[in-house]
Amino acid sequence: MALVVQKYGGTSVANAERVSAVAERVIRSKEKGNQVVVVVSAPAGMTDELIALARSVCKSPPAREMDMLLATGEQRSIALLAMAICARGHKAISFTGPQAGILTTKIHTKARILSINADRIKKELEEGNIVIVAGFQGSTEDNSITTLDRGGSDTSAVALAAGLKADVCEIYTDVDGVYTTDPRIVPDARKLDKISHDEMLEMASSGAKVLHSRAVEFAKKYDVPLYVLSSFNDNSGTLVTKEVKGMEDVVIRGVTHDKNQAKITIFGVPDKPGTAFKIFSEIGAAEINVDMIVQSIGKDGKATISFTVSKADVREALKIANDVDKEIGCTEVSADENIAKVSIVGVGMRSHSGVAARMFQALANNNINIQMISTSEIKLSCVVDENDIERAIKAIHDEFRLSG
Amino acid sequence: MALVVQKYGGTSVANAERVSAVAERVIRSKEKGNQVVVVVSAPAGMTDELIALARSVCKSPPAREMDMLLATGEQRSIALLAMAICARGHKAISFTGPQAGILTTKIHTKARILSINADRIKKELEEGNIVIVAGFQGSTEDNSITTLDRGGSDTSAVALAAGLKADVCEIYTDVDGVYTTDPRIVPDARKLDKISHDEMLEMASSGAKVLHSRAVEFAKKYDVPLYVLSSFNDNSGTLVTKEVKGMEDVVIRGVTHDKNQAKITIFGVPDKPGTAFKIFSEIGAAEINVDMIVQSIGKDGKATISFTVSKADVREALKIANDVDKEIGCTEVSADENIAKVSIVGVGMRSHSGVAARMFQALANNNINIQMISTSEIKLSCVVDENDIERAIKAIHDEFRLSG
Repeated sequence: MALVVQKYGGTSVANAERVSAVAERVIRSKEKGNQVVVVVSAPAGMTDELIALARSVCKSPPAREMDMLLATGEQRSIALLAMAICARGHKAISFTGPQAGILTTKIHTKARILSINADRIKKELEEGNIVIVAGFQGSTEDNSITTLDRGGSDTSAVALAAGLKADVCEIYTDVDGVYTTDPRIVPDARKLDKISHDEMLEMASSGAKVLHSRAVEFAKKYDVPLYVLSSFNDNSGTLVTKEVKGMEDVVIRGVTHDKNQAKITIFGVPDKPGTAFKIFSEIGAAEINVDMIVQSIGKDGKATISFTVSKADVREALKIANDVDKEIGCTEVSADENIAKVSIVGVGMRSHSGVAARMFQALANNNINIQMISTSEIKLSCVVDENDIERAIKAIHDEFRLSG
Repeated sequence: MALVVQKYGGTSVANAERVSAVAERVIRSKEKGNQVVVVVSAPAGMTDELIALARSVCKSPPAREMDMLLATGEQRSIALLAMAICARGHKAISFTGPQAGILTTKIHTKARILSINADRIKKELEEGNIVIVAGFQGSTEDNSITTLDRGGSDTSAVALAAGLKADVCEIYTDVDGVYTTDPRIVPDARKLDKISHDEMLEMASSGAKVLHSRAVEFAKKYDVPLYVLSSFNDNSGTLVTKEVKGMEDVVIRGVTHDKNQAKITIFGVPDKPGTAFKIFSEIGAAEINVDMIVQSIGKDGKATISFTVSKADVREALKIANDVDKEIGCTEVSADENIAKVSIVGVGMRSHSGVAARMFQALANNNINIQMISTSEIKLSCVVDENDIERAIKAIHDEFRLSG
């Protein structure tokens, strides 16, 4: 008998019909002899609806009360799913995050899981119940409801799987696995049977939205086998696992992209210690996440620093860059929102040489200019003109022969 | 500095605009120097919507999961009200029923309050917070969410007022107090300044829906002064209080009615011990509430037993009566749904004679036939034809000169 944790996202519990379909899927797993814990999100659209409602009574709602409000979304889902399971003659019991023993930090709307006391869940499993837990939420030590940082339901599921020492954590979503690249752009993109935690992390941070990074980090840390599957069909999904023998034989696992990027360039930066620190500490203090940073020194001894931020942050980042600019005496600051990032990811990059050259070649052959380059051990990213991004993805996908 | 508990019903928190109006009313009380605890219901219509949603996934949803689902309604209200108060520069904090320390029995969807641990609320009040509590809900000892029996939010408010030893409990509703009778039927019905707990209990049980009986019972038991007020205007309301001197000087306090009644009559009942017990134990076992019971013995030594139940229960009650009928050998069983009950209530009935005669006279003068009569110490009820009910109310209201 295996212990399985399943997680269903908002589209999977969007209405009564979908909830019933999930109930049937859950029961199938139970009937195979598994103990089943199910983590669910709020019905699709409900969180946005509640945020709008909150804004209609208060311009900047207190975070604690926002959590109180948002937590009702998942609470609705768990009750309905438990009912749908009971309607089919099986025993189910639902728990909110606080009831499930999920203890978090006190940072409302962006809480992080500290620990899980899974005693109650274990007891209910032993009594033959299917246990339904609200994702995305937990409780502080003094019993306030918190919601987790983005992608929180995935993290709830993996954390519960770790806490329960589950045999597998299945993440059901609206795609049936992780693909070599976005199938909407490259129709013959291939679904991956396996991907390592590290590759998945790099994929997630480079724009593949199947799994949230923090959930993958948890899975890696606690060695939880993670399956990504579709709740709309019975296709085999993708297993996210620790790196196993043979994974490096494949040069790269996939191509990801991110259009939600903007580039800021500071020209004529005095080349002296502390200058970069000055810029990025101010940006960081404004809670703006910087993705890529590239610096080069010109013949005049002055540096050019380029960095990317999300499009939503570009105005504020530009303002800060201009302020710092005046202070340290740079030549010029410019912003470019018409960019996009394309990345290749794969543990095979560690053992195969010439990977970067092949990527640059593929782009050059298609007359696509590279504006920025950034590398990590198992990832290589290029910033290109936004209008070139789809051609760039296709070219790279072809170059590495990733199609099915 | 007084400690005030205010309760707002579903229509008072139905939308953002109404929530904001409640926030302003709450703040006015706080600015008078009071400590304020606010109990709120789910937004009007939401409970019905959630019940329909539950039924769409499960014909008979498990009660525990129903409570999990329904509790989200009040949770939405408390978060929004706390936000609306914060938006106006005041400190507020919200608590679900379980967080507020409201411990109940385990009977889901019909739980009763066992005790309240108000320590957390007291602490927040001392720190200058307006405390918002979800009505209608609590928690079992093993931490499951429960919802209270009908009218639960009133009961939550009175129980909290008792637990906190509040100076007053203000129930805000969509009418501005308790009237001598339904103003929709008798336009010059008069609003009462004061009514005793006992009178209010009899009014509530006879169809006046302003306050739920259990809340009044709590208020009586713990001597909580209870104000019924409108959340739509600033009119003075009605004080529900212990019986004070002079209350008996008024013959009757008000006239109430209940159209949701049906009459079942069993003819030719053998007049021997245990017969009535047999009938009403079966009815009771089916959890059907019987209101009035009248028995008379005919010349043949056989009895006729009539009793009333709510219209929703009439089919089942009739089936039971027919079954028992066969068993004990009665002549006939009939049901009549076209009836209604009119009642007069007043502690003055104890010291004034001839009250019943005046009521019967008023009905007779208007050619209204009385089908059943039932009396208590401070109430007198008659069952009449449903078509006669409005004329009956007006006639009695006039007879006792209750108009303003």
